[in-house]
Amino acid sequence: MTPAERRSIIESVSVTPILIEDGPLLNMQGVHQPYTPRSIIEVVTVDGTTGLGETYGDSAVLAVIEQFATHLPGRSVLTPNDLWALAAEVLRPDTVPAKLVENAPGHNIFGDNSMLKLHSTVVSAFEVAFLDASGHLLGVPVHALLGGKVRDRIDFAAYLFYRWDAHPQPDAPVDEWGAALDPEGIVAQAARMIELHGFRSLKLKGGVFPPDEEIAAVTALHEAFPELPLRFDPNGAWSVETSIRVARELEGMIEYLEDPCLGRAEMAEVHAATGMPLATNMCVTDFGEFPEAVALDSIQVLLTDHHYWGGLRATQQLAAVCNTFGRSLSMHSNSHLGISLAAMVQAAACAEGDFHACDTHRPWQTEDVITRPHRIVDGAIEVSDAPGLGVELDRAELARLHERWKRSDVRDRDDVAAMQVKDPTFVKPAVPHW
Amino acid sequence: MTPAERRSIIESVSVTPILIEDGPLLNMQGVHQPYTPRSIIEVVTVDGTTGLGETYGDSAVLAVIEQFATHLPGRSVLTPNDLWALAAEVLRPDTVPAKLVENAPGHNIFGDNSMLKLHSTVVSAFEVAFLDASGHLLGVPVHALLGGKVRDRIDFAAYLFYRWDAHPQPDAPVDEWGAALDPEGIVAQAARMIELHGFRSLKLKGGVFPPDEEIAAVTALHEAFPELPLRFDPNGAWSVETSIRVARELEGMIEYLEDPCLGRAEMAEVHAATGMPLATNMCVTDFGEFPEAVALDSIQVLLTDHHYWGGLRATQQLAAVCNTFGRSLSMHSNSHLGISLAAMVQAAACAEGDFHACDTHRPWQTEDVITRPHRIVDGAIEVSDAPGLGVELDRAELARLHERWKRSDVRDRDDVAAMQVKDPTFVKPAVPHW
Ligand SMILES: [Mg+2]
Ligand SMILES: [Mg+2]
Repeated sequence: MTPAERRSIIESVSVTPILIEDGPLLNMQGVHQPYTPRSIIEVVTVDGTTGLGETYGDSAVLAVIEQFATHLPGRSVLTPNDLWALAAEVLRPDTVPAKLVENAPGHNIFGDNSMLKLHSTVVSAFEVAFLDASGHLLGVPVHALLGGKVRDRIDFAAYLFYRWDAHPQPDAPVDEWGAALDPEGIVAQAARMIELHGFRSLKLKGGVFPPDEEIAAVTALHEAFPELPLRFDPNGAWSVETSIRVARELEGMIEYLEDPCLGRAEMAEVHAATGMPLATNMCVTDFGEFPEAVALDSIQVLLTDHHYWGGLRATQQLAAVCNTFGRSLSMHSNSHLGISLAAMVQAAACAEGDFHACDTHRPWQTEDVITRPHRIVDGAIEVSDAPGLGVELDRAELARLHERWKRSDVRDRDDVAAMQVKDPTFVKPAVPHW
Repeated sequence: MTPAERRSIIESVSVTPILIEDGPLLNMQGVHQPYTPRSIIEVVTVDGTTGLGETYGDSAVLAVIEQFATHLPGRSVLTPNDLWALAAEVLRPDTVPAKLVENAPGHNIFGDNSMLKLHSTVVSAFEVAFLDASGHLLGVPVHALLGGKVRDRIDFAAYLFYRWDAHPQPDAPVDEWGAALDPEGIVAQAARMIELHGFRSLKLKGGVFPPDEEIAAVTALHEAFPELPLRFDPNGAWSVETSIRVARELEGMIEYLEDPCLGRAEMAEVHAATGMPLATNMCVTDFGEFPEAVALDSIQVLLTDHHYWGGLRATQQLAAVCNTFGRSLSMHSNSHLGISLAAMVQAAACAEGDFHACDTHRPWQTEDVITRPHRIVDGAIEVSDAPGLGVELDRAELARLHERWKRSDVRDRDDVAAMQVKDPTFVKPAVPHW
């Protein structure tokens, strides 16, 4: 063992669940809750080097991550590839919460290959922390551990949402964005996003209102910002027929359509009928789902997400798979803080390929656990060249957000329940909804 | 720039052509020459850290590598991904020898996508040297720079060749192996290989004699070593009809058949007709050739080779592509020395997937440029955990082999010319030959 390897041995691992403020963003499933859970991971080596990770905070994932963390002391942060074998060994159907591996229709986080997805999610959370620690230990940025960045700046799209002015709960946090429930509101939101962050491409989250209302919003965005690439993502809310109709109506206005309907065969049908490029973070969510999507020509753009594809190296490999099969890339986002964003930036920086602007919820988040939250300038984030991920944990904020988690009974993200606060008759929409 | 990055800046690069002894191994194209060229690369950073690489020594490749090397001083060894953009910038059809980019039928080293292959070959040669230097600089083995080894030992197959006792040239080097020109000779060669190195799988290079003679040799090998996985590689010498006939005759005796015929469509036809698993290092030789092989189901096993696939990271990505599409892996070998072998071992150690034993010419080589040539024990090589590639340059040997190159007029490997020394009427066989 070399001196660097001796210093790389893990002494302790902590997983800290937190609750973060979240705005009343609407989507197919309902609405974001006032607070949403995340997990913050710290890996500390014998020489005191710390690596940070961030991932989902939902109770079942949290339980698995906490269980997995107990196996890490004594291992080296320099060898994250080991995590796959460890995951296979300790995370089995008989050792993890049933809800993580059930393969229920519409269970859209874990997809067709539940155990693969679970392993990928857990490996990713710790791989990022291992890479951050390795970077600090060796004095190099994470991108040098991935062979070097191929981009200096990562472009992000303004991620536009239908939203309420405020959550219905009286004690919920309030942000400054106001309501956006029609084309005018969406255009105003886009204008503010662009003013604040300089975005040079736009994405509208749809699936909230009947298709014609959303077509009107997309049309209004295109007319207001004709020079900006524009995408539209109804999260699989539509039938094939509706998807084909909307794709035809939006031809020439949007760069691509994201997950108009669910299913690789259904997506392929929409593309074949319309020629509209289709993107996904729903019908291809792990390597096992890729071959059928190629065979059927279901998608033209794949949204990577290191959180569930298995980490930053897996993102590079996914990019290689996409490049080999002529698919272009973008990046998916869930509500996240700055550790995840730092990892997203490093991942995008090191993945060769044809990258469209990535998604981020960063403009919607009012809190962070890093001391210097990222700034989006001219629609992009500079790739950090500082050692590791280039972020520093704000321990006071972490403690405060963990206290909030301890005092709260919110343990899972549940957009349906959040919607039921306003409308007790609301039920999770059947798909296709339109 | 961090201190580690400052130390990683390249001060000088040297490319040293050498000639190494090579035995009279027969193949489809003729016979190995008494001496064959290789290029040895040394990259030295500003703090004196050295990284080693090894690749083809043929004159056209050597010229391109020497040209490329002039662009490297001032760059960092920590960021080999940069090499792709540099290759695209400086190695263009108008700046490289025409013979490297011509796409002549049967020009089987550079395949369908000449410029991609050329870039991959050049990037690989320097990526390995960069990784070796980075490992020394950071005090970690190359596998830690690739995320960590997923195997501790790499299995190799005994790579059996029809061969003469000696080269016909009076001053040619002589080795101890003797002739192997019939089933008995091949079985004796296998027995000696196993005795010396403990190999637990066998591969016979065919395409030398008419198929029935080679079927007899494969049958004799299977009867002599019934428990050992056995492969057979005629380098595309046969027609589809012959391939189908041989595949049927060898059913149950061989693990897979390697490149019985040329062409992805032709390979697919053989597999469809016989069910015989087919391996290749000829019909899928770059990422651009992979999709058609999947669509047609041309191959079941892909032989990686970091020398022309783009390096060790590219090998990891190739493995990910193969895993995604359910193809298993092995590794191709050309005559090589210990720097290449060290890189092959690190590549195989870090590539996830279903790996069959790899090929190596190591047992045939009588010389090396490293101070402690690898030993194959129980058919495997231990993955080095020393910093970098874990090999040390033998400068006296390097100087001696370079002197040989300077005194010789051999500048290219040419198996046809070597055969013509013995048989002046020999011409390169048309394919399919049988
Ligand atoms: Mg989406
Ligand atoms: Mg071969």
